Amino acid sequence: MPNSFGKLFTVTTWGESHGAAVGVVIDGCPARLPLGEADIQGDLDRRKPGQSDIVSPRKEKDKVEILSGLFEGKTTGAPIMMLVMNSDARPGAYDEFREKFRPSHADFTYLAKYGFRDHRGGGRSSARETIGRVASGAVARKILSLAGAVEIRAFVTRVHDIALPAAAADAFPTQAEVDATPVRCPDPATAAAMIRRIEEARSQGDSVGGVIQCRVRGVPAGLGEPVFDRLEADLAKAMLSLPATKGFEIGSGFAGTLLKGSEHNDAYVPKTGRIGTATNRSGGIQGGISDGEEIFFNVAFKPTATIMKPQMTVDVSGKPVELVGKGRHDPCVLPRAVPIVEAMAALVLVDHWMRNAAQNQVFKF
Amino acid sequence: MPNSFGKLFTVTTWGESHGAAVGVVIDGCPARLPLGEADIQGDLDRRKPGQSDIVSPRKEKDKVEILSGLFEGKTTGAPIMMLVMNSDARPGAYDEFREKFRPSHADFTYLAKYGFRDHRGGGRSSARETIGRVASGAVARKILSLAGAVEIRAFVTRVHDIALPAAAADAFPTQAEVDATPVRCPDPATAAAMIRRIEEARSQGDSVGGVIQCRVRGVPAGLGEPVFDRLEADLAKAMLSLPATKGFEIGSGFAGTLLKGSEHNDAYVPKTGRIGTATNRSGGIQGGISDGEEIFFNVAFKPTATIMKPQMTVDVSGKPVELVGKGRHDPCVLPRAVPIVEAMAALVLVDHWMRNAAQNQVFKF
Amino acid sequence: MPNSFGKLFTVTTWGESHGAAVGVVIDGCPARLPLGEADIQGDLDRRKPGQSDIVSPRKEKDKVEILSGLFEGKTTGAPIMMLVMNSDARPGAYDEFREKFRPSHADFTYLAKYGFRDHRGGGRSSARETIGRVASGAVARKILSLAGAVEIRAFVTRVHDIALPAAAADAFPTQAEVDATPVRCPDPATAAAMIRRIEEARSQGDSVGGVIQCRVRGVPAGLGEPVFDRLEADLAKAMLSLPATKGFEIGSGFAGTLLKGSEHNDAYVPKTGRIGTATNRSGGIQGGISDGEEIFFNVAFKPTATIMKPQMTVDVSGKPVELVGKGRHDPCVLPRAVPIVEAMAALVLVDHWMRNAAQNQVFKF
Amino acid sequence: MPNSFGKLFTVTTWGESHGAAVGVVIDGCPARLPLGEADIQGDLDRRKPGQSDIVSPRKEKDKVEILSGLFEGKTTGAPIMMLVMNSDARPGAYDEFREKFRPSHADFTYLAKYGFRDHRGGGRSSARETIGRVASGAVARKILSLAGAVEIRAFVTRVHDIALPAAAADAFPTQAEVDATPVRCPDPATAAAMIRRIEEARSQGDSVGGVIQCRVRGVPAGLGEPVFDRLEADLAKAMLSLPATKGFEIGSGFAGTLLKGSEHNDAYVPKTGRIGTATNRSGGIQGGISDGEEIFFNVAFKPTATIMKPQMTVDVSGKPVELVGKGRHDPCVLPRAVPIVEAMAALVLVDHWMRNAAQNQVFKF
Repeated sequence: MPNSFGKLFTVTTWGESHGAAVGVVIDGCPARLPLGEADIQGDLDRRKPGQSDIVSPRKEKDKVEILSGLFEGKTTGAPIMMLVMNSDARPGAYDEFREKFRPSHADFTYLAKYGFRDHRGGGRSSARETIGRVASGAVARKILSLAGAVEIRAFVTRVHDIALPAAAADAFPTQAEVDATPVRCPDPATAAAMIRRIEEARSQGDSVGGVIQCRVRGVPAGLGEPVFDRLEADLAKAMLSLPATKGFEIGSGFAGTLLKGSEHNDAYVPKTGRIGTATNRSGGIQGGISDGEEIFFNVAFKPTATIMKPQMTVDVSGKPVELVGKGRHDPCVLPRAVPIVEAMAALVLVDHWMRNAAQNQVFKF
Repeated sequence: MPNSFGKLFTVTTWGESHGAAVGVVIDGCPARLPLGEADIQGDLDRRKPGQSDIVSPRKEKDKVEILSGLFEGKTTGAPIMMLVMNSDARPGAYDEFREKFRPSHADFTYLAKYGFRDHRGGGRSSARETIGRVASGAVARKILSLAGAVEIRAFVTRVHDIALPAAAADAFPTQAEVDATPVRCPDPATAAAMIRRIEEARSQGDSVGGVIQCRVRGVPAGLGEPVFDRLEADLAKAMLSLPATKGFEIGSGFAGTLLKGSEHNDAYVPKTGRIGTATNRSGGIQGGISDGEEIFFNVAFKPTATIMKPQMTVDVSGKPVELVGKGRHDPCVLPRAVPIVEAMAALVLVDHWMRNAAQNQVFKF
Repeated sequence: MPNSFGKLFTVTTWGESHGAAVGVVIDGCPARLPLGEADIQGDLDRRKPGQSDIVSPRKEKDKVEILSGLFEGKTTGAPIMMLVMNSDARPGAYDEFREKFRPSHADFTYLAKYGFRDHRGGGRSSARETIGRVASGAVARKILSLAGAVEIRAFVTRVHDIALPAAAADAFPTQAEVDATPVRCPDPATAAAMIRRIEEARSQGDSVGGVIQCRVRGVPAGLGEPVFDRLEADLAKAMLSLPATKGFEIGSGFAGTLLKGSEHNDAYVPKTGRIGTATNRSGGIQGGISDGEEIFFNVAFKPTATIMKPQMTVDVSGKPVELVGKGRHDPCVLPRAVPIVEAMAALVLVDHWMRNAAQNQVFKF
Repeated sequence: MPNSFGKLFTVTTWGESHGAAVGVVIDGCPARLPLGEADIQGDLDRRKPGQSDIVSPRKEKDKVEILSGLFEGKTTGAPIMMLVMNSDARPGAYDEFREKFRPSHADFTYLAKYGFRDHRGGGRSSARETIGRVASGAVARKILSLAGAVEIRAFVTRVHDIALPAAAADAFPTQAEVDATPVRCPDPATAAAMIRRIEEARSQGDSVGGVIQCRVRGVPAGLGEPVFDRLEADLAKAMLSLPATKGFEIGSGFAGTLLKGSEHNDAYVPKTGRIGTATNRSGGIQGGISDGEEIFFNVAFKPTATIMKPQMTVDVSGKPVELVGKGRHDPCVLPRAVPIVEAMAALVLVDHWMRNAAQNQVFKF
């Protein structure tokens, strides 16, 4: 099931960029959760195109409809089907790409795999697929906030070479601070510089990438699995499953490899009502299982593949051709990716919460 | 199934560091594959302790026994059960850890999750668990080499701050070059410096980490899935499921975020008998699916948590106590992790190869 | 994923009887399959209410809409989302059942499981859920017919005590013969008696059950798995997952237990171009794997739980109350269940076809 | 994973009839369960050959060894690997079957599927595979008995045409009553007649089949899933996955189809401390979910395929040949199948218990 994610809280997304609609089915959502479209729409609005000057101008309301799984304002335990109609599809705008492969897009690989492809705006490989992730992630976030006051906060820490100062990157910003600017970096001065860098790239018909950090607090110790389904392994998979991502690091990450063991180890210390660690280079996870400290990780996003400069490529027959940039696009995907990263983190955590309970809280021996 | 990996070529590892044995069951291995213990032992020998002066001195032959799934030298399609007896277990050496949590080990989190733990050498969280990965990965590698001349080569590119020169990191070394030194870095001069760094750390009772790169060639275009089970997502999960890993990057990775789209895009060009790309910042994967170019990725390993210096921690009651380093350990896990990284890459690739075939090569429409 | 079925050709149904819509997502459908709504509608029409005098008079067009996964008349390999809007929902007609448990319905058990339920027409437990099964089964049947001329034919062999003569039950009727009467029994005289029995039950405010047989021809030898996922085990699960089913038997079934081994064994004999069996008490499957002979099995359906006679039951507080029969219903579910049985058989077979190929046809050793 | 069963309590069996050993890995067993080999051996002894005059004389002690997952007498949450060495393997006794297909055995279908087979005693298709089922089922039974006083009792209700009187079939016999005779029918007079029938068949070189009933009490209301993973659907799959089974019926089963709805419906009535039903034609399950009443079902087993009479068959080239019966075998599989049926029922119930908890008892809204 390549279009599904999660073992107990399972989401299956469907839909294409220029088809009738995109959506998601959640199977395994617990019953009795108070839920309505208003719980979903907020995160979809943070993801939708056209929300600011630095993102794609495609005009989509991305209004969610819930077609099943609810009764009188609460979940019933049945599958929750949610969809968003595509209203600003312009399939004709993509005629050039029927025959030509866009560099660093999935056009060629989809054709190699399936022998057939929907070329309109990337079809299934479009980031519109992430609407279903954000919608189902909003349900997961509501569960987590009710279950244990878990808070998930992603924010942009770097755009191209404009980086959030290190001190600020360690703080846990409020959502208001993150959303204060369209670039979703909580430091106003850095955010302003990032916006200038994005506008500069767009004015050149070019694009930029960067890094998003995600921090999670409120996760109790004991979540995650040993061996293959470690919490950080499932987070890594979740993040690398997002379009345009090229890297993931948890806790000290790549930089931590420059420390010695005596510098890197997190000493256990007594904390109020629990055992904690004096430092947190582990990023809140040991041996695949949460330790009760803040979980944090970074995700690298490449510069948007769609640019407005002419590029060389080949057509479906393998003949070199020039490709002229066209179509609506984001000169930098990171601002809209923030709620998507949060959604994926929420999906991982709810799933592990349920798995852990099934194994360890059901039977009393 | 937290101890299983793969959807069609599924491996399930079992066993503890100081239990009777460790092993693996492969379910889904195709029939008629010529296979014997000799196909497995080579990679186990590259993983085993005691193989050189810079790794753990624990004395284990790690001799594999295959108990099922073979008949007259070929696989039958039935589950393949392979095990290695633990012969140098010294459970008594770990008595101190029954009551004290080792910093940056899984002692505390296992207890938080399960309410009970096997403290002997980390029990299930020990890197001895990876024996099953290497044994099953050797089967996967044999399949890949027979199926399509796929070659998988991992090697150490950095130990602490000693790094392989950039040019060398882009080459595809031979296994002989990798194994020429005990540190498994293919550049002799760099390898010598790395070994000195590891010996220096050990002499201080300390440890170091670093980076392993893995390169794969021979993978045809079209392998991988869109959306959640992207090839890079499954590779990321595979690598972050290994003990001591803190980061993963595919292709240009984190450094690629410093490029603009016009610098980062890989132009398609005609190549002999196929369509290829002029550059390979994508790392051989586009939209989750292989493009026929070399796949390469980096994995960050933290410095070994076990050190020989006294450290502060708490005991199971939460009281601060001093922990005196003990037990046999690796001052740097990277040399022995090389075959483990290769094994996990092989498991991901065989599984996707089979999944892709099921979807796209079965029915002719 | 309790609402999903199939490992490689995976269908997930969603929707409630009196919600906005019911539908299904297929994940794993091979690309390039010619497909349109016309391929689906035929089987939905055979399943829909109001099609004859002996089934529920609920007025539903059950018009399918395909919202994703198609491009220019062919599948792309992406998820296929299909839905049917509910147009004749009358939620108010079910107010009595909000507080009272209908005997031999799922009202009580859903409340016991979820602590909350959608009481309108059974909500998720309604047989309207099977619309998604029939729609996705139609896709599976098209694949099977293109792949290998596989034909699947279900038909009613018994209604209450009116049974198809044994000889007729062994034949492979045409779909026209099955659909010639509204009861879907291919023998006209038996069908007429069955219809009278159903009308008699309805006129008494009562209901009847019976047996459906399903026969499949064209399945090559070698499909299915040993051990847990035997072909007959997956067929049994598929059939017992249907509402109102109470039994399943493959080949000789329960009656076969009255034979001795020497009477029951199917001798192998040479047949044209293949090895076959002289008799077929095995029902086309040996050791979980198809042997190339016709696959056939029987499914028992209980009499419809909804009757128009007053019945004693309890309310949600446990107090005895009388329940007056209400609502539109089928006095016998079997006629409409015929395409549902066929759909489930098709889903099982396509999934095993793909699984078998992945294991046994991918690698050549 | 064709050799695995269960979503959260997952068992994977491995091994061949005449290989080195057979065994099972349990992944997902809760931690802190007191467990030792003595908990397992009892059911293995009830399954083993040579235990009486009416079963196979193969001499196997079937002594279980637990190689992982335990620490100081309790489970740790890690995989539990259990094995039994094959000590009375006589591979040479099967040379005839290398080239000839035994009628109604899996010889031909395994070859059709895999293109290669281990012909020794059926290899993987041998009923020795069920040792792993019984061993893991014993763990599941211990969990169920500790968790909720759940009792599972299977017994033989029919051998050939010798049937337990109907009244006795509705009782819940003690295990002592079941095990009082080697045929495992709790009624002594019927048991004696069954034994005579089996001995008579054996003396003729023939074999007989029959029916096993299984009853489960103590299961709380609310276990099971709607739609595909209904409790009866998973039980049906579990039973049809056993060698030699041809049918499954829950509650009223096939006979229930002869009743009218007004006769078949189970009226809800107040019972002590809970809501129950006046009758139990449903067999303890409504809409896929347990209702708190006794769960009961029947399983049909065909007459053993191995007989001592000469039979016609074909060889691997398709040429007709005579096959002379050889090898040790059971003239009737039912006596030894009793603990296997119980084991499978236990595996289904523990898995659903854990799944239900994960969905419905984790989050409080």
